[in-house]
Amino acid sequence: MAQVLPMHDDADTLVGDLARAGRKAQRTLARMSDADKARALRSAAASLRASAAPILEANAKDIAAGQANGLSGAMLDRLRLDEERLEGIAAAIENVAGLPDPVGQVIDRSTAPSGLELVRRRIPIGLIGIIYESRPNVTADAAALCLRSGNAALLRGGSEAVHSNRAIMTALVAGLAKEGVPEAAIQLMPTQDREAVGAMLRAAGLIDMIVPRGGKGLVERVQKDARVPVLAHLDGICHTYIHAAADPAMAEEIAVNAKMRRTGICGSLETLLLDANFPASGKVVGALLDAGCELRGDARAQAIDARVRPASANDWDTEYLDAIASVAVVDGMDAALDHIARHSSGHTDAIVTSDDTAAERFLAEVDSAIVMHNASTQFADGGEFGLGAEIGIATGRLHARGPVALEGLTTYKWQVLGTGQARP
Amino acid sequence: MAQVLPMHDDADTLVGDLARAGRKAQRTLARMSDADKARALRSAAASLRASAAPILEANAKDIAAGQANGLSGAMLDRLRLDEERLEGIAAAIENVAGLPDPVGQVIDRSTAPSGLELVRRRIPIGLIGIIYESRPNVTADAAALCLRSGNAALLRGGSEAVHSNRAIMTALVAGLAKEGVPEAAIQLMPTQDREAVGAMLRAAGLIDMIVPRGGKGLVERVQKDARVPVLAHLDGICHTYIHAAADPAMAEEIAVNAKMRRTGICGSLETLLLDANFPASGKVVGALLDAGCELRGDARAQAIDARVRPASANDWDTEYLDAIASVAVVDGMDAALDHIARHSSGHTDAIVTSDDTAAERFLAEVDSAIVMHNASTQFADGGEFGLGAEIGIATGRLHARGPVALEGLTTYKWQVLGTGQARP
Repeated sequence: MAQVLPMHDDADTLVGDLARAGRKAQRTLARMSDADKARALRSAAASLRASAAPILEANAKDIAAGQANGLSGAMLDRLRLDEERLEGIAAAIENVAGLPDPVGQVIDRSTAPSGLELVRRRIPIGLIGIIYESRPNVTADAAALCLRSGNAALLRGGSEAVHSNRAIMTALVAGLAKEGVPEAAIQLMPTQDREAVGAMLRAAGLIDMIVPRGGKGLVERVQKDARVPVLAHLDGICHTYIHAAADPAMAEEIAVNAKMRRTGICGSLETLLLDANFPASGKVVGALLDAGCELRGDARAQAIDARVRPASANDWDTEYLDAIASVAVVDGMDAALDHIARHSSGHTDAIVTSDDTAAERFLAEVDSAIVMHNASTQFADGGEFGLGAEIGIATGRLHARGPVALEGLTTYKWQVLGTGQARP
Repeated sequence: MAQVLPMHDDADTLVGDLARAGRKAQRTLARMSDADKARALRSAAASLRASAAPILEANAKDIAAGQANGLSGAMLDRLRLDEERLEGIAAAIENVAGLPDPVGQVIDRSTAPSGLELVRRRIPIGLIGIIYESRPNVTADAAALCLRSGNAALLRGGSEAVHSNRAIMTALVAGLAKEGVPEAAIQLMPTQDREAVGAMLRAAGLIDMIVPRGGKGLVERVQKDARVPVLAHLDGICHTYIHAAADPAMAEEIAVNAKMRRTGICGSLETLLLDANFPASGKVVGALLDAGCELRGDARAQAIDARVRPASANDWDTEYLDAIASVAVVDGMDAALDHIARHSSGHTDAIVTSDDTAAERFLAEVDSAIVMHNASTQFADGGEFGLGAEIGIATGRLHARGPVALEGLTTYKWQVLGTGQARP
C-alpha cells in the first residue's frame, strides 16, 4: 500500500502512475471468476474485523484533529467509528460479495445474415475514481462495489478522515491480497493535496469514470472541472404533484413521508404541487405544517393556510435538505408538467392520483431519472430498488440513470463468432 | 428553417437559442408514437424525392465552388449528388422508418419488497449534435436516426456542402412538418463560422451528446474540446492474430479480406500478428503481398518474405487506411494479447484459430469494443450487425460501444408504480 509519499514532479505524474498501476491490476480482476471475487471480498471483510484496533486508533486521531480544528458535531459524528459501525462496514462488504456478479452476463445474442453470431456481453468499465468527503465507510463501500464488478478503484477521501481511510485501506488490501487480488486494484491517493483531485478530474483515458460522493460543493466542482465522465447528481429538487383525483388520505401520508421521514436525503420532497381541483389541499398542507415543516407558497397556497409563508422566486429552485418545502397550486396536469419541466433537477418526481390515465401521462412526460405514481419520493434508493447497494444516484442522460449499483459499473463488448467469414 | 442568419452577439448565444428551440421540439417528439414517427420519416423521404431539382441545383453550386477552390477528385466525389444518390438517401430514410422504435421498450421490470413495481423504460436522450464533413447524405441519415429514436438534432455540416445541406434540410423539414414534427426538431447551424463548432462542443446541459462524422482531424478536435459527451472512435487500429492452430486457407482468406476488401474503412486490418508456431505464415504473407498490400514487419516477419519492408516503431500505432499493413511474429497467445493491449485502438480485433479454448481466451481478454473469432474485421458495421443502420462506431467505455444505431440514441427512466407506499 502506498502509505509513503512517493517523490513526484507533479500531481498529474502521481495520478498517471497510480492510474497505470490500477489499470494493470484491473486486467487481473477482469479475469477473476464470480466466486473468486466474492471470496476476496469476504476475506477483506474478515481482515477489517481483525483490524478493528488499529482502525479505531487511527479514527481517534482523526476525531482529535477534527475537534482541534473545530469540526461541527454533525461532521464529527459522520467521521466517528466504533465497534458497531465497523461491524456495519464489514457486513456491507459481505452483502456486496453476495450480490450477483454482472460481469460476463449476456445482454443479447443474435445471428447476422452473414452467419456471424453476435453476443453482447457485460465487462467491467476499468478504473473508477471515487472522490468523497468525511464518511470513512465510503472507502470500503465504494471499493467493494468496484471490485465486485471487476473494476479497479482509485479513491480520494477527505483530509479529516485521512488516518481512518488509510487504516481501512490497509486492512482491505491485506484481506484481498490473501485471495489473489493485486494490491493496486484498490488504491488510496497518498496525498491530501487538492491539486491531486484536479489531476484525477483531468485524467481522461486513464480514469474511465469518476463518482463524487459528498456535498453539493464537491459535486459541483467535479462536474465543472472533469474531463473524465462523471456519474452523479447535483441537486435533488423532487416534486410531488397531488392530482385532482388523488385519494386525500394517501396524499397526506405520502406528502408528509416524502418530506419529513428524513429531510436531508436527496430523494426528499422539496416542492409540493397541489392541483387547484384537489378538494383536500387544506388537510395535506395542515398535516405538513403540524409535522413541523415550514411551507413557502405562492399566493394560492398561502390562502390555504395562514401559516404558509410567501415563497420567493428562488424557492422553486432550492433543495432545502431541511424541514422546509415550497408549495404551489397548479391548474391541472399541463401546469404541473410545465412547473416540473422548469424546476425539477431530474432526480425524482411523483404524482398521487387514482386516475390511471393521468398517472400514465405523468410517468411518460416527466423527464426525470425516476418518476413515481402513488409512492413517496423517499424510496429513491438503490437498496429500495432491489439493487442490493448503491454507488450513487445519477441524473445525467448517458450510460446509467437513477440509482446505480453493479450494472452501472459495467460496459459491454461485442463478441463475434464466425466460421471463416470474409465480407463480400 | 433558419436559412437567414440571425443577428447574434456570439456563437454561444446562437447555439443556446438553437438548442433551446431543439429541446422544446424534442418534448413533442418524445410524445409521438412509433407509427407517427415512421409516417413523418416517409413523408420526409417523399419530400426529398420531390425536391430533387432544387437539391441538385444547390449541389451544382457546391461542386462549382469546390472545383474553384481546388478540392481533390475524391472530395468532389464525396460531395457530388445525382438522381441515383438522392434516391439512395431517400431509400435510407425509409429504411430507418421501417426499423423498430426503441422508445418505450421495457428494459426490465421487478417488484421491490415494499410492493413498488419498478419498470426501466427506454426514452430518447434529448438533443443530439452532429458535426460532419463533406458528404451531404449525413444530413439526412443522421437526422432520420435521431428522429426515429425521438431525439432532436442540431447538425453542423462542412462548408464545402453548405448549399446541398441547406436544400436537403429544407426538403426534410417540409416533409416532416406535414406530419406534425416541429420545425426545430432538426436544425442545421445557419453559419459556417468555426467558432460555432466550439460553441456546440461547450454546450453541456443544452446538447446531450455529440457525434462527429468525418476524418481523424475532426474527431480529434471534438474529443479534445468537447464538454458534451462524445460518441466516436478516433482510430481503427485493428489486429488480426493468426493463432498456431488456425486453418491456413481460412487465415489467408480472412487476412486478405480484412485488409484489402476496402482499405479505407475503420474496420480494416492494420496489423497482422502471426503466431511463431503457425505453419503457413509464408502463404498468408505472400497472399497479402500478391494482392498488392505493402507489408512492414519486424525482423521475423521480414524473414518470411523478402518483400516485407522493415517496420519503424510508429508502424504499430498507425492507421494506414491504405493498402499497407504492419506484420509481427509473436510467441503465442500471451505475446499476442500484450501486443494488442499496447497498440489496439479498442475498435475491432480478431483471432483466427480452430482451437476453441484459445478463441474463448482471446474473446474474453481483448478489451476492445468488438472482438471476433474466425471472421474478417471488415464486418465491424451496424448494418452487418443487424442494427439496420449506424450513427457511428464508438470506442469509449460508457453508454454504447461498437456499432451504434437506434438503441444507442436512447437512455432510460425508472417508472415506479405504487399503491400509496410511504417509506418506513
